Amino acid sequence: MKKMGLGAGELGRAYDALSAMRRDRSCTKFVGVAGAVIPAGLRSLIAHMAKHRYFDALVLTGAGVTHDLMEGLGERPLLLRGEASDEALLKKGVHRIYDIAVKRSSYAKLESFVKQVLRSMPAGCYGTYRVVEALGSALKDRGSIVKQCCLSSIPVYSPGIVDSVLGSQIWARSQGRVKINVLEDMNHIVDKAWSSRRAGALFLGGGVPKHFILLAAHTANRPLSYAVQITMDRPEHGGLSGAKLQEAVSWRKLLPGAKRADLICDVSIALPLLVAALEERNDHKP
Amino acid sequence: MKKMGLGAGELGRAYDALSAMRRDRSCTKFVGVAGAVIPAGLRSLIAHMAKHRYFDALVLTGAGVTHDLMEGLGERPLLLRGEASDEALLKKGVHRIYDIAVKRSSYAKLESFVKQVLRSMPAGCYGTYRVVEALGSALKDRGSIVKQCCLSSIPVYSPGIVDSVLGSQIWARSQGRVKINVLEDMNHIVDKAWSSRRAGALFLGGGVPKHFILLAAHTANRPLSYAVQITMDRPEHGGLSGAKLQEAVSWRKLLPGAKRADLICDVSIALPLLVAALEERNDHKP
Amino acid sequence: MKKMGLGAGELGRAYDALSAMRRDRSCTKFVGVAGAVIPAGLRSLIAHMAKHRYFDALVLTGAGVTHDLMEGLGERPLLLRGEASDEALLKKGVHRIYDIAVKRSSYAKLESFVKQVLRSMPAGCYGTYRVVEALGSALKDRGSIVKQCCLSSIPVYSPGIVDSVLGSQIWARSQGRVKINVLEDMNHIVDKAWSSRRAGALFLGGGVPKHFILLAAHTANRPLSYAVQITMDRPEHGGLSGAKLQEAVSWRKLLPGAKRADLICDVSIALPLLVAALEERNDHKP
Amino acid sequence: MKKMGLGAGELGRAYDALSAMRRDRSCTKFVGVAGAVIPAGLRSLIAHMAKHRYFDALVLTGAGVTHDLMEGLGERPLLLRGEASDEALLKKGVHRIYDIAVKRSSYAKLESFVKQVLRSMPAGCYGTYRVVEALGSALKDRGSIVKQCCLSSIPVYSPGIVDSVLGSQIWARSQGRVKINVLEDMNHIVDKAWSSRRAGALFLGGGVPKHFILLAAHTANRPLSYAVQITMDRPEHGGLSGAKLQEAVSWRKLLPGAKRADLICDVSIALPLLVAALEERNDHKP
Repeated sequence: MKKMGLGAGELGRAYDALSAMRRDRSCTKFVGVAGAVIPAGLRSLIAHMAKHRYFDALVLTGAGVTHDLMEGLGERPLLLRGEASDEALLKKGVHRIYDIAVKRSSYAKLESFVKQVLRSMPAGCYGTYRVVEALGSALKDRGSIVKQCCLSSIPVYSPGIVDSVLGSQIWARSQGRVKINVLEDMNHIVDKAWSSRRAGALFLGGGVPKHFILLAAHTANRPLSYAVQITMDRPEHGGLSGAKLQEAVSWRKLLPGAKRADLICDVSIALPLLVAALEERNDHKP
Repeated sequence: MKKMGLGAGELGRAYDALSAMRRDRSCTKFVGVAGAVIPAGLRSLIAHMAKHRYFDALVLTGAGVTHDLMEGLGERPLLLRGEASDEALLKKGVHRIYDIAVKRSSYAKLESFVKQVLRSMPAGCYGTYRVVEALGSALKDRGSIVKQCCLSSIPVYSPGIVDSVLGSQIWARSQGRVKINVLEDMNHIVDKAWSSRRAGALFLGGGVPKHFILLAAHTANRPLSYAVQITMDRPEHGGLSGAKLQEAVSWRKLLPGAKRADLICDVSIALPLLVAALEERNDHKP
Repeated sequence: MKKMGLGAGELGRAYDALSAMRRDRSCTKFVGVAGAVIPAGLRSLIAHMAKHRYFDALVLTGAGVTHDLMEGLGERPLLLRGEASDEALLKKGVHRIYDIAVKRSSYAKLESFVKQVLRSMPAGCYGTYRVVEALGSALKDRGSIVKQCCLSSIPVYSPGIVDSVLGSQIWARSQGRVKINVLEDMNHIVDKAWSSRRAGALFLGGGVPKHFILLAAHTANRPLSYAVQITMDRPEHGGLSGAKLQEAVSWRKLLPGAKRADLICDVSIALPLLVAALEERNDHKP
Repeated sequence: MKKMGLGAGELGRAYDALSAMRRDRSCTKFVGVAGAVIPAGLRSLIAHMAKHRYFDALVLTGAGVTHDLMEGLGERPLLLRGEASDEALLKKGVHRIYDIAVKRSSYAKLESFVKQVLRSMPAGCYGTYRVVEALGSALKDRGSIVKQCCLSSIPVYSPGIVDSVLGSQIWARSQGRVKINVLEDMNHIVDKAWSSRRAGALFLGGGVPKHFILLAAHTANRPLSYAVQITMDRPEHGGLSGAKLQEAVSWRKLLPGAKRADLICDVSIALPLLVAALEERNDHKP
């Protein structure tokens, strides 16, 4: 594929960068996940990646943690085929994410779980990674990303957690006992980045997860040696989500000679391809 | 313009929705800002909007607060014309945001300002809006968005603040004395949304600012009555940033009959047009 | 605007390039139009541009000519607000172009006009510009782009004409008497480009109109000295429509030092802005 | 994949539609190709598809025929890694298509081939499919798409041929002896569509190839029963290239109940995946 042009060539370079990163034992590997890839169906693949140590630290949006936990409680998303209007879905108690639907009742189930976990936590001020860890530990489903990360001692940061249904449930149920100090996340992730000689990252979508990893790499003085970004966002309007990785060089967030690829593709199409290719070649297994 | 099709028609509908929102005295007006619109040159326009009460609450990314404060300290961004490589920019101490450049020395200046402000704050656990208020109050520049918001008692939330240079400076300089409890932001913004009969929003880009406003509207039981979104992101890959506003109806974040527009345009082009049109018609002035 | 970044800065550069091109009397000015901008509402603006000699040659898609002629026959497009399904529109005899609707009966009216015009033409093999000229001359509506071009002796090329309803009507009604030799278009447009010392172009969308102008400029040894492109297409998948103008330098279709701008914007928003700005400054009037 | 959401779900539906189309012996199958997929590396895959009768008729852009013939003459495109500026490439005699490069000397080689083939054709007025057939027959390379189509009696239409380097070479070398009557293409493709009970299409990119097939299906009264579109273009600005297939229902170009998929993906990534999946399942082989 590297001998092809356009997207196919970039897919080849993404494979190369990920493969080299996977083999590098002196590299702390980060994955950032934004968007709706978990309810789209990539949940078990990312859980598999956690189990098989494709990464050492994970950054999720609040919605990402929400979606993973809800499925862990047995509440699976549905698929829509455009038949119903949003007004009709509202009446049916179904929330829409493009062509995916999540039941309102699933959120209720999540809320009682959250309530119960919060109760078990001593009053205090926590980084988000500790709240996520408490939630993951209480979960039984081994198909869960958060659970698998707990089992493998992989921290899951969610610095934007308050901006999610889960965040609003924590807010409503914490009764002031549990506070979330996001500065602790910075502390922890910087230490994580600093713990190896090199750092690398796979960005599935942009948003807070992408930037938080870049910022940690910079702050820990570990500009990324490997970086693969998969997104459909475009760069010209200046948002960080669509910014080309190249730009991060000027910020000292990415090494000038880093192995990198900017793949413009739906994550739900590209990630399974890349992981399948990585798995197929035995020598890349840890 | 409403009689035109495609983008021009949507621009007309955006004007209509904003104009109706501006006239509605029983509506709490939110603006969410993501992306690089402040260094791109919209800073004074948004400050003008704050001064003239186009909105009652503002949600910024951490980068948004960072960019506004830095200019408030006299550090203006530069424009690039593609002449230098990112490697060369790194050597020159210049960070790139598409075609905009920010000097590394500007960040140093920001850091001493942050340090000084943090020192003046009693030890404690703060919502981001309180930290931003402390920073804005200490600033002298009336061209600043954050300053103008302070002067007009408009809260500025930045729930993703830790994910920014400013956030990392707060982290480095707070010495554990100042903590950031993002749950307090939720508390405050929900109260804000709840304080009027209706709510409305203008979303400049997506990201955390967009979702945090939608979530607040939902939690406060004030689904938006007016909503205008300006973004270049597309909906099909399921991210919230590019999701059509229509989708929010199924979440009870937007009223089924809300006046709304989904404008697919660079914010730096569309916002000046819309505000100019709103200003031109005297009857829309408050 | 030139002092702004991102899209706003590019809009400023687009103005500069167009303004310089308009003042240059030794430059053959081309405009290429693709997409649905005519039924979207830009028809009278482009006709105005023809009348006021903003360009010396026009390249339209077959659909562009079709839409202009139909309106010239009194058949105006409608605007949809998403209320009806495509199945329902099919039953009502209404064809959809995103949020624009064209009545099937309008095409029937066009067909009798085409039939009549073809009858008046001697049997032979014509370039598309001659067929379009015959159609425009027979039209009475001075609000028509094609008519205004006839009145101002501006050739209108439509090398992809067969790929349109108009093309299929010509095919059905020509009865073998009228043939379309697209090589004649190449002949004529190359002469046109060759007739001045310099050439410049405004590309509204990509497609055949964009490339045909670039090819003519190259073939006539008049690489563009001015070029402005307005499109929402992106470059990374390699299509010519979304290709950055810069790329044309390597093809000798654009001069290395050409004044140029790549504006990423809906044409229906950007074109009125640019023409209004050009009109406002008296010194730019010819 | 059909059980997934977002792009992965659409990929599953694309497979389903193509698989059903492949099994349907009463369906004339069309493929339309726009963009730079041939020099990107899909040439041999599309030639393979011709040989194994994945389609009965092909519509190419002029550039598509150009690229296929040049490789057939031994002139292969190169890959760039962004190292050289377009000014430098111009000096080196290399033309750029995003990250692909084509040598100027390759075009010279093509020109002498074209000259020779044109000489062998009797003076007259030809449809583009006949010119392409003459070129393909004269070619020896069985890896060529055009050649394979000749060998399998699959017509290749290129109604926009004049808008390409090949078109300009035909123009320059035909000396008025050879004329191109695009109305003959319409005639031939409508007959082709009409020859089976049903029609189906795979659109790789948009442009003239997409619309010409839709128009032929409509004119022949064979609205498509199967349709798969792979493109990165977006629909909101009204161009046909990015229009959702659904829209074609209102035009009677697509049956309301057609099996269809709108895949938003780089063709160079998606097509190999889809063909590999179709090949893997023996029962789908003809």
